Amino acid sequence: MDEPKPRLLRALAGETLDRPPVWFMRQAGRSLPEYRQLRAQAADFIAFCHNPEMAAEATLQPMRRFPLDAAIVFADILLIPRALGQEVWFESGEGPRLGPLPDIARMADAVEASTDRLSDIGETLARVRAALEPDRALIGFAGAPWTVATYMIEGKGSDRQAARRFAYDHPETLDALLEVLVEATARYLVMQARSGAQALKIFESWAEGLAEDVFERIVIRPHREIVARVRAAGVTAPFIGFPRGAGALVETYAAAVPVEGVALDTQASAAMGRRLQAGGKTIQGALDNLLLRAGGPALDARVEGLLAQWSDGPYIFNLGHGVMPDTPIDHIARVVARVTGKPVKAMAA
Amino acid sequence: MDEPKPRLLRALAGETLDRPPVWFMRQAGRSLPEYRQLRAQAADFIAFCHNPEMAAEATLQPMRRFPLDAAIVFADILLIPRALGQEVWFESGEGPRLGPLPDIARMADAVEASTDRLSDIGETLARVRAALEPDRALIGFAGAPWTVATYMIEGKGSDRQAARRFAYDHPETLDALLEVLVEATARYLVMQARSGAQALKIFESWAEGLAEDVFERIVIRPHREIVARVRAAGVTAPFIGFPRGAGALVETYAAAVPVEGVALDTQASAAMGRRLQAGGKTIQGALDNLLLRAGGPALDARVEGLLAQWSDGPYIFNLGHGVMPDTPIDHIARVVARVTGKPVKAMAA
Repeated sequence: MDEPKPRLLRALAGETLDRPPVWFMRQAGRSLPEYRQLRAQAADFIAFCHNPEMAAEATLQPMRRFPLDAAIVFADILLIPRALGQEVWFESGEGPRLGPLPDIARMADAVEASTDRLSDIGETLARVRAALEPDRALIGFAGAPWTVATYMIEGKGSDRQAARRFAYDHPETLDALLEVLVEATARYLVMQARSGAQALKIFESWAEGLAEDVFERIVIRPHREIVARVRAAGVTAPFIGFPRGAGALVETYAAAVPVEGVALDTQASAAMGRRLQAGGKTIQGALDNLLLRAGGPALDARVEGLLAQWSDGPYIFNLGHGVMPDTPIDHIARVVARVTGKPVKAMAA
Repeated sequence: MDEPKPRLLRALAGETLDRPPVWFMRQAGRSLPEYRQLRAQAADFIAFCHNPEMAAEATLQPMRRFPLDAAIVFADILLIPRALGQEVWFESGEGPRLGPLPDIARMADAVEASTDRLSDIGETLARVRAALEPDRALIGFAGAPWTVATYMIEGKGSDRQAARRFAYDHPETLDALLEVLVEATARYLVMQARSGAQALKIFESWAEGLAEDVFERIVIRPHREIVARVRAAGVTAPFIGFPRGAGALVETYAAAVPVEGVALDTQASAAMGRRLQAGGKTIQGALDNLLLRAGGPALDARVEGLLAQWSDGPYIFNLGHGVMPDTPIDHIARVVARVTGKPVKAMAA
């Protein structure tokens, strides 16, 4: 009861802090040599995500290296379609591949069972929460329905043009698929919160290129539903919504979806971020992952710029996209040390 | 002298009209069977663009089919790198391919000659202007320096990640390349205006994913320079800037670049468009090209929605991206008839 409230949760509660909390999307994973070593021990990526011992270790690895304010559970947005009955696998160096889209009514029948099939991720969260210092927050997450649907429809990562055509050519089918995903995602996030997740992030990784009316139908509406259903289950953990690539529609999103935090992507403007803060949202972002990789004086200058432009309101320091696998660890360490004011341990890879 | 001022130019002068002018990006080209027939007569796409007779015919084809308010010269944004000495060719079905990036100092020496090498496009414009009714405007265009540079650096269309890395890893080299392109583009646009172009559009097709500080350096600064140099040459034709994918940074762009019109992409919000109009810009856009392709009641509803949301200020009806090659001609005809209130002739392909 007297434990310090993690800085991330204070920011998400709307507090303007003496310095923002910091974490990085994809802080765990291929940029760390200890991850690459660990990953080699699992048969494949899906098996790795479903192994609580390994996934918890991967989640904690960056927390040992850097004084980050939050961990995010190591998992993948495509675990849900797999739990709903679609085949999912990862081609080395090529990214995800999915089998044919299953019958939607059949997936609707599998929603309750899908959450049971994802219980390993709950176990990962429980292990991480038990190991993590109390002043460091643990974030759970899921892919947003539209983003997950683009993979389910196209069978792989792509430019999403086939999925966007599908949205116009088969609106009823898409709506039915999104409804299945909304319910499965809400249940999955409730399970994550009950297993130790203290904040919940919804990754809409492919919000780009959508017209405003379509965005309202396939992004805003499902996000609202997820938040409502998670809240109805009694979960109070704050949400971070991440409509990546939504551009000017980020503000439409923020006004319509009752998330506490809005994660901004690389191209966010300083002015838009301040408008969101003034409107009662905590913002997160938006360092360019390519600049974190490049390093040098330009990186230092941009970090100062981001801190200067957004630290007068509730703000979580982060990237606008995930850490690139070839990012030098020194660059990450330098930014974390600057934002936290804490020394960072040995950098050697 | 008593000729009616084309509706497009009235809109770009800031007038709110009884109905907006309408044209479509890629209104000429593969969606039209008469284009496919014409194109088959040229050896390759570059030769086609450099043949004033064929290019003028391609420019005029959609003007005969539809009561569009503006024609845009048939050309390609990669004619400039070719005129500067980089090899450019088109692989059938694969898009553009470019040879190695030439020495930048050598290209700088070739800037003046590059405009002469593009004189065919001036000839195309003169032919089109002579053939076009006086109440229909003729638009000239060029690719923006950053967008053209992404092709010059990567050698093809791509996700631009290599070019964005280049922007951080070799900032001086990129700045030197952009300066060459700024000067070549300004001269090219001056030549186009003197040949009959009445409005000038700058296509920044790949403005997406850029951080605000980088966007200011490689998008805003070059656009400002181009406008300034064209104006210094005595050209008064209005500009339309198209920072496609810039999201919230579109407003930063509009405030910083003295273009008369700002073209909005598919994901533009109604609210942002109205803010731009209130700030003194004419806006253009932003129908989804995938919806134009799909057709049906959803298309009709969206056209009404766009007209309702933006017709109270200076507005040019257009797409947010180019016409897809497999778009049914009937869909184009239906939208043009609705916006113009004019009957559209036989639709048969």
